[in-house]
Amino acid sequence: MTQTLIDTQALEQVLEEFADARNWRKHHSPKNLAMALTGEVGELVEIFQWRSEEDSWHVAQAPETAEHVRQELADVALYLIRLASVLKVDLNAAIQDKLVMNAKKYPPL
Amino acid sequence: MTQTLIDTQALEQVLEEFADARNWRKHHSPKNLAMALTGEVGELVEIFQWRSEEDSWHVAQAPETAEHVRQELADVALYLIRLASVLKVDLNAAIQDKLVMNAKKYPPL
Amino acid sequence: MTQTLIDTQALEQVLEEFADARNWRKHHSPKNLAMALTGEVGELVEIFQWRSEEDSWHVAQAPETAEHVRQELADVALYLIRLASVLKVDLNAAIQDKLVMNAKKYPPL
Amino acid sequence: MTQTLIDTQALEQVLEEFADARNWRKHHSPKNLAMALTGEVGELVEIFQWRSEEDSWHVAQAPETAEHVRQELADVALYLIRLASVLKVDLNAAIQDKLVMNAKKYPPL
Repeated sequence: MTQTLIDTQALEQVLEEFADARNWRKHHSPKNLAMALTGEVGELVEIFQWRSEEDSWHVAQAPETAEHVRQELADVALYLIRLASVLKVDLNAAIQDKLVMNAKKYPPL
Repeated sequence: MTQTLIDTQALEQVLEEFADARNWRKHHSPKNLAMALTGEVGELVEIFQWRSEEDSWHVAQAPETAEHVRQELADVALYLIRLASVLKVDLNAAIQDKLVMNAKKYPPL
Repeated sequence: MTQTLIDTQALEQVLEEFADARNWRKHHSPKNLAMALTGEVGELVEIFQWRSEEDSWHVAQAPETAEHVRQELADVALYLIRLASVLKVDLNAAIQDKLVMNAKKYPPL
Repeated sequence: MTQTLIDTQALEQVLEEFADARNWRKHHSPKNLAMALTGEVGELVEIFQWRSEEDSWHVAQAPETAEHVRQELADVALYLIRLASVLKVDLNAAIQDKLVMNAKKYPPL
Protein backbone atom coordinates (compact mmCIF):
# COMPACT_ATOMS: atom_id res chain seq x y z
CA MET A 1 0.00 0.00 0.00
CA THR A 2 3.00 2.28 0.33
CA GLN A 3 3.78 1.54 -3.31
CA THR A 4 4.03 4.50 -5.69
CA LEU A 5 1.98 4.02 -8.84
CA ILE A 6 1.93 7.67 -9.81
CA ASP A 7 4.18 10.45 -8.53
CA THR A 8 2.82 13.95 -9.02
CA GLN A 9 4.65 15.84 -6.29
CA ALA A 10 7.10 17.79 -8.45
CA LEU A 11 4.30 18.79 -10.81
CA GLU A 12 2.03 19.88 -7.98
CA GLN A 13 4.77 22.15 -6.68
CA VAL A 14 5.47 23.62 -10.12
CA LEU A 15 1.76 24.30 -10.66
CA GLU A 16 1.42 25.99 -7.29
CA GLU A 17 4.38 28.25 -8.01
CA PHE A 18 3.03 28.95 -11.49
CA ALA A 19 -0.35 29.96 -10.08
CA ASP A 20 1.09 32.04 -7.28
CA ALA A 21 3.42 33.93 -9.63
CA ARG A 22 0.32 35.01 -11.57
CA ASN A 23 -1.90 35.65 -8.58
CA TRP A 24 -4.26 32.91 -9.78
CA ARG A 25 -4.90 31.22 -6.44
CA LYS A 26 -8.18 33.11 -6.02
CA HIS A 27 -9.39 31.80 -9.38
CA HIS A 28 -8.32 28.23 -8.64
CA SER A 29 -11.22 27.16 -6.48
CA PRO A 30 -12.04 23.45 -6.85
CA LYS A 31 -15.34 24.39 -8.46
CA ASN A 32 -13.61 26.50 -11.10
CA LEU A 33 -10.87 23.94 -11.70
CA ALA A 34 -13.47 21.21 -12.20
CA MET A 35 -15.03 23.40 -14.89
CA ALA A 36 -11.67 24.08 -16.52
CA LEU A 37 -11.01 20.33 -16.54
CA THR A 38 -14.33 19.87 -18.36
CA GLY A 39 -13.39 22.41 -20.97
CA GLU A 40 -10.07 20.72 -21.68
CA VAL A 41 -11.64 17.28 -21.88
CA GLY A 42 -14.06 18.74 -24.41
CA GLU A 43 -11.12 19.90 -26.55
CA LEU A 44 -9.52 16.46 -26.28
CA VAL A 45 -12.74 14.71 -27.26
CA GLU A 46 -13.11 16.93 -30.33
CA ILE A 47 -10.01 15.31 -31.80
CA PHE A 48 -11.75 11.93 -31.75
CA GLN A 49 -15.36 12.79 -32.53
CA TRP A 50 -15.37 12.25 -36.31
CA ARG A 51 -12.66 9.59 -36.38
CA SER A 52 -13.41 5.87 -36.34
CA GLU A 53 -12.17 3.73 -33.46
CA GLU A 54 -9.66 2.26 -35.89
CA ASP A 55 -8.31 5.69 -36.85
CA SER A 56 -8.24 6.82 -33.23
CA TRP A 57 -5.28 4.50 -32.55
CA HIS A 58 -3.08 6.60 -34.83
CA VAL A 59 -3.95 10.06 -33.60
CA ALA A 60 -0.67 10.57 -31.72
CA GLN A 61 1.39 9.51 -34.74
CA ALA A 62 -0.58 11.16 -37.57
CA PRO A 63 1.17 14.48 -38.38
CA GLU A 64 -2.07 16.49 -38.48
CA THR A 65 -3.07 15.52 -34.92
CA ALA A 66 0.09 14.36 -33.08
CA GLU A 67 1.01 17.69 -31.52
CA HIS A 68 -2.60 18.63 -30.86
CA VAL A 69 -3.43 15.48 -28.92
CA ARG A 70 -0.23 15.79 -26.88
CA GLN A 71 -1.19 19.33 -25.89
CA GLU A 72 -4.75 18.45 -24.98
CA LEU A 73 -3.68 15.44 -22.90
CA ALA A 74 -1.26 17.75 -21.09
CA ASP A 75 -3.96 20.35 -20.47
CA VAL A 76 -6.30 17.76 -18.99
CA ALA A 77 -3.50 16.41 -16.80
CA LEU A 78 -2.55 19.89 -15.61
CA TYR A 79 -6.04 20.74 -14.41
CA LEU A 80 -6.60 17.31 -12.90
CA ILE A 81 -3.36 17.42 -10.89
CA ARG A 82 -4.00 21.01 -9.87
CA LEU A 83 -7.52 20.12 -8.72
CA ALA A 84 -6.30 17.16 -6.63
CA SER A 85 -3.60 19.41 -5.22
CA VAL A 86 -5.83 22.27 -4.06
CA LEU A 87 -8.23 19.69 -2.59
CA LYS A 88 -5.25 18.12 -0.76
CA VAL A 89 -6.17 14.69 -2.13
CA ASP A 90 -3.32 12.16 -2.33
CA LEU A 91 -3.97 11.02 -5.88
CA ASN A 92 -1.61 8.04 -5.64
CA ALA A 93 -3.43 6.69 -2.58
CA ALA A 94 -6.84 7.42 -4.10
CA ILE A 95 -5.87 5.52 -7.25
CA GLN A 96 -4.62 2.52 -5.29
CA ASP A 97 -7.85 2.34 -3.33
CA LYS A 98 -9.90 2.62 -6.52
CA LEU A 99 -7.91 -0.13 -8.22
CA VAL A 100 -8.66 -2.44 -5.30
CA MET A 101 -12.36 -1.62 -5.68
CA ASN A 102 -12.25 -2.14 -9.44
CA ALA A 103 -10.50 -5.48 -9.08
CA LYS A 104 -13.29 -6.69 -6.79
CA LYS A 105 -16.01 -5.33 -9.07
CA TYR A 106 -14.44 -6.77 -12.21
CA PRO A 107 -12.59 -9.99 -11.31
CA PRO A 108 -10.01 -11.14 -13.87
CA LEU A 109 -11.17 -13.76 -16.38
CA MET B 1 14.13 18.88 -20.06
CA THR B 2 15.02 15.45 -18.69
CA GLN B 3 13.39 16.46 -15.43
CA THR B 4 10.55 14.30 -14.14
CA LEU B 5 7.49 16.30 -13.12
CA ILE B 6 5.09 13.40 -13.20
CA ASP B 7 5.91 9.69 -13.19
CA THR B 8 3.14 7.44 -14.45
CA GLN B 9 5.12 4.39 -15.56
CA ALA B 10 4.17 2.00 -12.76
CA LEU B 11 0.52 2.96 -13.12
CA GLU B 12 0.57 2.52 -16.90
CA GLN B 13 1.93 -0.99 -16.47
CA VAL B 14 -0.65 -1.89 -13.82
CA LEU B 15 -3.46 -0.59 -16.03
CA GLU B 16 -2.23 -2.56 -19.02
CA GLU B 17 -2.07 -5.76 -16.98
CA PHE B 18 -5.50 -5.01 -15.52
CA ALA B 19 -7.01 -4.56 -18.99
CA ASP B 20 -5.27 -7.60 -20.46
CA ALA B 21 -6.39 -9.85 -17.60
CA ARG B 22 -9.99 -8.92 -18.48
CA ASN B 23 -9.59 -9.00 -22.23
CA TRP B 24 -10.44 -5.30 -22.37
CA ARG B 25 -7.80 -4.23 -24.88
CA LYS B 26 -10.30 -4.38 -27.74
CA HIS B 27 -12.61 -2.00 -25.86
CA HIS B 28 -9.81 0.41 -24.96
CA SER B 29 -9.53 2.28 -28.25
CA PRO B 30 -8.48 5.91 -27.76
CA LYS B 31 -11.90 7.02 -29.00
CA ASN B 32 -13.67 4.91 -26.36
CA LEU B 33 -11.27 5.92 -23.60
CA ALA B 34 -11.80 9.60 -24.42
CA MET B 35 -15.53 9.01 -23.96
CA ALA B 36 -15.00 7.15 -20.69
CA LEU B 37 -12.86 10.05 -19.50
CA THR B 38 -15.75 12.39 -20.30
CA GLY B 39 -18.16 10.28 -18.30
CA GLU B 40 -15.92 10.30 -15.24
CA VAL B 41 -15.33 14.05 -15.46
CA GLY B 42 -19.10 14.44 -15.54
CA GLU B 43 -19.37 12.49 -12.30
CA LEU B 44 -16.64 14.61 -10.73
CA VAL B 45 -18.32 17.84 -11.80
CA GLU B 46 -21.63 16.72 -10.28
CA ILE B 47 -20.04 16.93 -6.85
CA PHE B 48 -19.43 20.63 -7.36
CA GLN B 49 -22.43 21.78 -9.37
CA TRP B 50 -24.69 22.99 -6.55
CA ARG B 51 -21.90 24.01 -4.16
CA SER B 52 -20.54 27.54 -3.95
CA GLU B 53 -16.90 28.21 -4.76
CA GLU B 54 -16.37 28.76 -1.06
CA ASP B 55 -17.85 25.38 -0.15
CA SER B 56 -15.95 23.66 -2.94
CA TRP B 57 -12.70 24.11 -1.00
CA HIS B 58 -13.93 21.73 1.70
CA VAL B 59 -15.26 18.91 -0.47
CA ALA B 60 -12.37 16.55 0.26
CA GLN B 61 -12.68 17.09 4.03
CA ALA B 62 -16.48 17.15 4.41
CA PRO B 63 -17.57 13.65 5.49
CA GLU B 64 -20.47 13.48 3.00
CA THR B 65 -18.22 14.08 -0.01
CA ALA B 66 -14.64 13.20 0.99
CA GLU B 67 -14.64 9.60 -0.19
CA HIS B 68 -16.74 10.37 -3.26
CA VAL B 69 -14.42 13.09 -4.57
CA ARG B 70 -11.36 10.89 -3.98
CA GLN B 71 -12.93 8.13 -6.04
CA GLU B 72 -13.97 10.39 -8.89
CA LEU B 73 -10.54 12.03 -9.07
CA ALA B 74 -9.05 8.55 -9.22
CA ASP B 75 -11.43 7.49 -11.99
CA VAL B 76 -10.56 10.52 -14.09
CA ALA B 77 -6.84 9.90 -13.53
CA LEU B 78 -7.15 6.21 -14.45
CA TYR B 79 -8.76 6.91 -17.81
CA LEU B 80 -6.44 9.81 -18.58
CA ILE B 81 -3.31 7.78 -17.89
CA ARG B 82 -4.70 4.80 -19.76
CA LEU B 83 -5.54 7.01 -22.76
CA ALA B 84 -2.05 8.56 -22.86
CA SER B 85 -0.61 5.06 -22.53
CA VAL B 86 -2.50 3.43 -25.42
CA LEU B 87 -1.67 6.49 -27.55
CA LYS B 88 2.00 6.06 -26.58
CA VAL B 89 2.20 9.70 -25.53
CA ASP B 90 4.90 10.55 -22.97
CA LEU B 91 2.70 12.55 -20.62
CA ASN B 92 5.63 13.93 -18.63
CA ALA B 93 7.27 15.32 -21.77
CA ALA B 94 3.94 16.63 -23.09
CA ILE B 95 3.31 18.44 -19.80
CA GLN B 96 6.75 20.02 -19.77
CA ASP B 97 6.29 21.32 -23.29
CA LYS B 98 2.86 22.68 -22.41
CA LEU B 99 4.17 24.44 -19.32
CA VAL B 100 6.77 26.20 -21.47
CA MET B 101 4.01 27.33 -23.82
CA ASN B 102 1.81 28.46 -20.93
CA ALA B 103 4.65 30.44 -19.36
CA LYS B 104 5.12 32.33 -22.63
CA LYS B 105 1.40 32.91 -23.07
CA TYR B 106 0.92 34.05 -19.47
CA PRO B 107 4.11 35.75 -18.24
CA PRO B 108 4.44 36.02 -14.45
CA LEU B 109 3.33 39.33 -12.89
CA MET C 1 -35.94 35.04 -39.95
CA THR C 2 -39.21 35.05 -38.04
CA GLN C 3 -39.42 31.31 -38.73
CA THR C 4 -39.73 28.99 -35.74
CA LEU C 5 -37.32 26.07 -35.90
CA ILE C 6 -37.56 25.18 -32.24
CA ASP C 7 -40.22 26.27 -29.78
CA THR C 8 -39.21 26.02 -26.12
CA GLN C 9 -41.54 28.55 -24.53
CA ALA C 10 -43.94 26.17 -22.80
CA LEU C 11 -41.02 24.15 -21.43
CA GLU C 12 -39.21 27.24 -20.19
CA GLN C 13 -42.30 28.27 -18.27
CA VAL C 14 -42.77 24.80 -16.78
CA LEU C 15 -39.13 24.70 -15.69
CA GLU C 16 -39.35 28.11 -14.07
CA GLU C 17 -42.45 27.11 -12.13
CA PHE C 18 -40.82 23.82 -11.17
CA ALA C 19 -37.73 25.61 -9.84
CA ASP C 20 -39.71 28.28 -8.03
CA ALA C 21 -41.95 25.72 -6.33
CA ARG C 22 -38.81 24.15 -4.85
CA ASN C 23 -37.01 27.40 -4.07
CA TRP C 24 -34.26 26.40 -6.49
CA ARG C 25 -33.79 29.77 -8.20
CA LYS C 26 -30.81 30.61 -5.98
CA HIS C 27 -29.11 27.37 -7.06
CA HIS C 28 -29.84 27.91 -10.74
CA SER C 29 -27.10 30.38 -11.57
CA PRO C 30 -25.86 30.02 -15.14
CA LYS C 31 -22.50 28.81 -13.81
CA ASN C 32 -24.16 26.03 -11.82
CA LEU C 33 -26.52 25.08 -14.64
CA ALA C 34 -23.59 24.82 -17.05
CA MET C 35 -21.99 22.37 -14.62
CA ALA C 36 -25.21 20.38 -14.26
CA LEU C 37 -25.43 20.22 -18.05
CA THR C 38 -21.91 18.77 -18.10
CA GLY C 39 -22.84 16.12 -15.59
CA GLU C 40 -25.86 15.02 -17.60
CA VAL C 41 -23.89 14.92 -20.84
CA GLY C 42 -21.38 12.71 -19.04
CA GLU C 43 -24.18 10.29 -18.15
CA LEU C 44 -25.41 10.30 -21.74
CA VAL C 45 -21.92 9.64 -23.11
CA GLU C 46 -21.47 6.68 -20.75
CA ILE C 47 -24.21 4.85 -22.66
CA PHE C 48 -22.11 5.03 -25.82
CA GLN C 49 -18.54 4.67 -24.56
CA TRP C 50 -18.07 0.91 -24.97
CA ARG C 51 -20.45 0.48 -27.91
CA SER C 52 -19.30 0.54 -31.51
CA GLU C 53 -20.58 3.21 -33.87
CA GLU C 54 -22.63 0.48 -35.53
CA ASP C 55 -24.25 -0.56 -32.24
CA SER C 56 -24.83 3.05 -31.24
CA TRP C 57 -27.56 3.35 -33.89
CA HIS C 58 -29.74 0.87 -31.97
CA VAL C 59 -29.40 2.27 -28.46
CA ALA C 60 -32.89 3.77 -28.37
CA GLN C 61 -34.47 0.52 -29.56
CA ALA C 62 -32.41 -2.03 -27.60
CA PRO C 63 -34.42 -2.96 -24.47
CA GLU C 64 -31.43 -2.65 -22.12
CA THR C 65 -30.72 0.97 -23.10
CA ALA C 66 -33.91 2.42 -24.65
CA GLU C 67 -35.36 3.93 -21.50
CA HIS C 68 -31.98 5.01 -20.19
CA VAL C 69 -31.02 6.98 -23.29
CA ARG C 70 -34.44 8.65 -23.40
CA GLN C 71 -33.99 9.81 -19.81
CA GLU C 72 -30.48 11.10 -20.34
CA LEU C 73 -31.44 12.97 -23.50
CA ALA C 74 -34.28 14.54 -21.54
CA ASP C 75 -31.96 15.52 -18.67
CA VAL C 76 -29.52 17.20 -21.05
CA ALA C 77 -32.39 19.03 -22.76
CA LEU C 78 -33.86 20.18 -19.45
CA TYR C 79 -30.64 21.79 -18.26
CA LEU C 80 -29.86 23.29 -21.66
CA ILE C 81 -33.31 24.90 -21.96
CA ARG C 82 -33.18 26.07 -18.35
CA LEU C 83 -29.73 27.59 -18.91
CA ALA C 84 -30.83 29.46 -22.03
CA SER C 85 -33.90 30.60 -20.14
CA VAL C 86 -32.14 32.06 -17.09
CA LEU C 87 -29.65 33.75 -19.45
CA LYS C 88 -32.62 35.19 -21.38
CA VAL C 89 -31.17 33.88 -24.64
CA ASP C 90 -33.68 33.29 -27.44
CA LEU C 91 -32.52 29.83 -28.39
CA ASN C 92 -34.54 29.73 -31.61
CA ALA C 93 -32.95 32.95 -32.85
CA ALA C 94 -29.49 31.84 -31.71
CA ILE C 95 -29.89 28.58 -33.61
CA GLN C 96 -31.01 30.32 -36.78
CA ASP C 97 -28.01 32.64 -36.68
CA LYS C 98 -25.68 29.70 -36.08
CA LEU C 99 -27.15 27.73 -38.98
CA VAL C 100 -26.45 30.68 -41.29
CA MET C 101 -22.84 30.74 -40.06
CA ASN C 102 -22.49 26.97 -40.46
CA ALA C 103 -23.89 27.07 -43.99
CA LYS C 104 -21.24 29.65 -44.95
CA LYS C 105 -18.44 27.71 -43.24
CA TYR C 106 -19.50 24.38 -44.75
CA PRO C 107 -21.08 25.00 -48.17
CA PRO C 108 -23.22 22.15 -49.52
CA LEU C 109 -21.48 19.72 -51.90
CA MET D 1 -49.77 13.96 -21.99
CA THR D 2 -50.38 15.07 -25.58
CA GLN D 3 -49.23 18.55 -24.55
CA THR D 4 -46.32 20.06 -26.45
CA LEU D 5 -43.65 21.45 -24.17
CA ILE D 6 -40.93 21.60 -26.79
CA ASP D 7 -41.34 21.43 -30.55
CA THR D 8 -38.21 20.45 -32.45
CA GLN D 9 -39.70 19.05 -35.65
CA ALA D 10 -38.81 21.89 -38.01
CA LEU D 11 -35.27 21.97 -36.67
CA GLU D 12 -34.85 18.21 -36.98
CA GLN D 13 -35.85 18.41 -40.61
CA VAL D 14 -33.50 21.32 -41.32
CA LEU D 15 -30.62 19.45 -39.66
CA GLU D 16 -31.28 16.31 -41.66
CA GLU D 17 -31.31 18.25 -44.92
CA PHE D 18 -28.17 20.11 -43.86
CA ALA D 19 -26.35 16.85 -43.13
CA ASP D 20 -27.55 15.12 -46.27
CA ALA D 21 -26.52 18.04 -48.49
CA ARG D 22 -22.98 17.60 -47.15
CA ASN D 23 -22.95 13.81 -47.16
CA TRP D 24 -22.49 13.84 -43.38
CA ARG D 25 -24.95 11.08 -42.52
CA LYS D 26 -22.15 8.51 -42.30
CA HIS D 27 -20.35 10.70 -39.74
CA HIS D 28 -23.48 11.32 -37.69
CA SER D 29 -23.61 8.07 -35.77
CA PRO D 30 -25.10 8.50 -32.28
CA LYS D 31 -21.70 7.69 -30.77
CA ASN D 32 -20.02 10.46 -32.76
CA LEU D 33 -22.80 12.95 -32.12
CA ALA D 34 -22.59 12.27 -28.37
CA MET D 35 -18.89 13.13 -28.58
CA ALA D 36 -19.57 16.29 -30.58
CA LEU D 37 -22.13 17.29 -27.98
CA THR D 38 -19.46 16.87 -25.31
CA GLY D 39 -17.07 19.08 -27.19
CA GLU D 40 -19.60 21.87 -27.53
CA VAL D 41 -20.59 21.66 -23.87
CA GLY D 42 -16.90 22.01 -23.06
CA GLU D 43 -16.77 25.23 -25.08
CA LEU D 44 -19.88 26.51 -23.31
CA VAL D 45 -18.46 25.71 -19.88
CA GLU D 46 -15.23 27.56 -20.69
CA ILE D 47 -17.21 30.80 -20.76
CA PHE D 48 -18.18 30.29 -17.13
CA GLN D 49 -15.12 28.65 -15.60
CA TRP D 50 -13.32 31.73 -14.24
CA ARG D 51 -16.45 33.81 -13.61
CA SER D 52 -18.21 33.94 -10.27
CA GLU D 53 -21.79 32.73 -9.96
CA GLU D 54 -22.78 36.37 -9.59
CA ASP D 55 -21.04 37.37 -12.82
CA SER D 56 -22.42 34.36 -14.65
CA TRP D 57 -25.89 35.93 -14.62
CA HIS D 58 -24.71 38.70 -16.95
CA VAL D 59 -22.85 36.64 -19.53
CA ALA D 60 -25.53 36.98 -22.20
CA GLN D 61 -25.69 40.76 -21.75
CA ALA D 62 -21.98 41.58 -21.27
CA PRO D 63 -20.64 42.71 -24.68
CA GLU D 64 -17.49 40.56 -24.45
CA THR D 65 -19.44 37.32 -24.00
CA ALA D 66 -22.99 37.89 -25.29
CA GLU D 67 -22.46 36.65 -28.84
CA HIS D 68 -20.13 33.86 -27.74
CA VAL D 69 -22.57 32.34 -25.27
CA ARG D 70 -25.42 32.55 -27.80
CA GLN D 71 -23.34 30.62 -30.30
CA GLU D 72 -22.25 27.95 -27.85
CA LEU D 73 -25.79 27.43 -26.58
CA ALA D 74 -26.88 27.03 -30.21
CA ASP D 75 -24.09 24.53 -30.92
CA VAL D 76 -25.06 22.40 -27.92
CA ALA D 77 -28.72 22.53 -28.96
CA LEU D 78 -27.91 21.59 -32.56
CA TYR D 79 -26.03 18.44 -31.59
CA LEU D 80 -28.55 17.47 -28.93
CA ILE D 81 -31.50 17.77 -31.31
CA ARG D 82 -29.59 15.99 -34.06
CA LEU D 83 -28.67 13.16 -31.67
CA ALA D 84 -32.27 12.71 -30.51
CA SER D 85 -33.35 12.80 -34.16
CA VAL D 86 -30.99 10.10 -35.47
CA LEU D 87 -31.91 7.96 -32.45
CA LYS D 88 -35.60 8.51 -33.33
CA VAL D 89 -36.32 9.59 -29.76
CA ASP D 90 -39.35 11.85 -29.29
CA LEU D 91 -37.67 14.47 -27.14
CA ASN D 92 -40.93 16.15 -26.14
CA ALA D 93 -42.36 12.87 -24.83
CA ALA D 94 -39.07 11.96 -23.13
CA ILE D 95 -39.02 15.33 -21.39
CA GLN D 96 -42.59 15.01 -20.18
CA ASP D 97 -41.90 11.57 -18.73
CA LYS D 98 -38.75 12.86 -17.03
CA LEU D 99 -40.59 15.82 -15.53
CA VAL D 100 -43.11 13.43 -13.98
CA MET D 101 -40.24 11.42 -12.49
CA ASN D 102 -38.52 14.57 -11.22
CA ALA D 103 -41.72 15.84 -9.62
CA LYS D 104 -42.03 12.58 -7.68
CA LYS D 105 -38.38 12.57 -6.68
CA TYR D 106 -38.41 16.22 -5.63
CA PRO D 107 -41.88 17.11 -4.33
CA PRO D 108 -42.67 20.85 -4.23
CA LEU D 109 -42.11 22.58 -0.89
